[in-house]
Amino acid sequence: MPRIPDIVVGRLPLYLRALNRMQAQGVDITSSHELGQQLGISSAQIRKDLSHFGEFGKQGTGYNVVSLIGALQHILHADRTWDVALVGVGDLGRALAHYGGFGPRGFHISHLFDADPAKIGKKIDGLTIQPASEIEQTVKSANLKVAMIATPANTAQAVADTLVQAGIRSILNYAPISLTVPEGVRVQHIDPIIHLQRMIYYLD
Amino acid sequence: MPRIPDIVVGRLPLYLRALNRMQAQGVDITSSHELGQQLGISSAQIRKDLSHFGEFGKQGTGYNVVSLIGALQHILHADRTWDVALVGVGDLGRALAHYGGFGPRGFHISHLFDADPAKIGKKIDGLTIQPASEIEQTVKSANLKVAMIATPANTAQAVADTLVQAGIRSILNYAPISLTVPEGVRVQHIDPIIHLQRMIYYLD
Repeated sequence: MPRIPDIVVGRLPLYLRALNRMQAQGVDITSSHELGQQLGISSAQIRKDLSHFGEFGKQGTGYNVVSLIGALQHILHADRTWDVALVGVGDLGRALAHYGGFGPRGFHISHLFDADPAKIGKKIDGLTIQPASEIEQTVKSANLKVAMIATPANTAQAVADTLVQAGIRSILNYAPISLTVPEGVRVQHIDPIIHLQRMIYYLD
Repeated sequence: MPRIPDIVVGRLPLYLRALNRMQAQGVDITSSHELGQQLGISSAQIRKDLSHFGEFGKQGTGYNVVSLIGALQHILHADRTWDVALVGVGDLGRALAHYGGFGPRGFHISHLFDADPAKIGKKIDGLTIQPASEIEQTVKSANLKVAMIATPANTAQAVADTLVQAGIRSILNYAPISLTVPEGVRVQHIDPIIHLQRMIYYLD
């Protein structure tokens, strides 16, 4: 398959989320037009994005919601459960550890790490907080590929380096800092300011 | 000024963040090429986006980093400080209340609300947690336009309705639910799964 632009890949999870909502509402069939209206994306763009991956739906009959969900999950590798290491169990890390939204959508926080001796050994929902010194060995032996960083900014890069060294290839970064990672490793940065600024443009 | 596509507006905060980093590194002059490489956006796209708002930089001499930061802050209304109401002071809300990244980038959490009687009246960094029943009156009298929702999913829509009723026009939603708001109100949804799925596409 030819290389798909990352911007296209980035829209697929949005399509998947919208389709999951439709399914929850009992919708069987949808269209690029309806999807586009929900997402604020043109129907032509949606058809073009999906055409990278094959033929979905038929002209005039729309998309079967369940089939398209299955296809997108398969394309995104979201048709399995990914174990995730979470580093940093402060307020935010605890919120993530408790978050109920990961499981139904293919992710499972399987390991918790923190550098604070007062936290190490404590449990969150049955999962024991391990010392940060165990990251490398644990990530390797559990063959983890996905991690979330919820540490303070000043330790996030060192944590990322250790994670990458241990084999992590996808990092969701909540620390307020831009991480540098080698080629072949992906980082997504959760930055609330980006979202806030996008909205205040519309305020007077 | 003609209406700017929202997709363009959405990229401006990314440009601003990249420029702020350059400034912190002592960079005085940059180019659409350099910005594009940092952001994974084509230089042509960046030039086109900025051309909506006027003439920045000169052909061949690049952009003055400080000037472009100032211009983008002005365009985005990020050249002032926006007071923000935060509803929901659980683990996540507490993490947001403590987050040091808002102030330097134009946002100030000015009010905290929670429905839990055990939390009401307690203070976080000097700010008292108010009962959710006071949202409407407080938001109105303080003339707040921006809010963050960090409540459980099952109360988020009711909270959003109250906030909108009171005059909020920009909502950053951390609750794992899609909010419905009237025309003229903007919602951005912080959804970690979208970011995770975008990355696992690249894993085997």
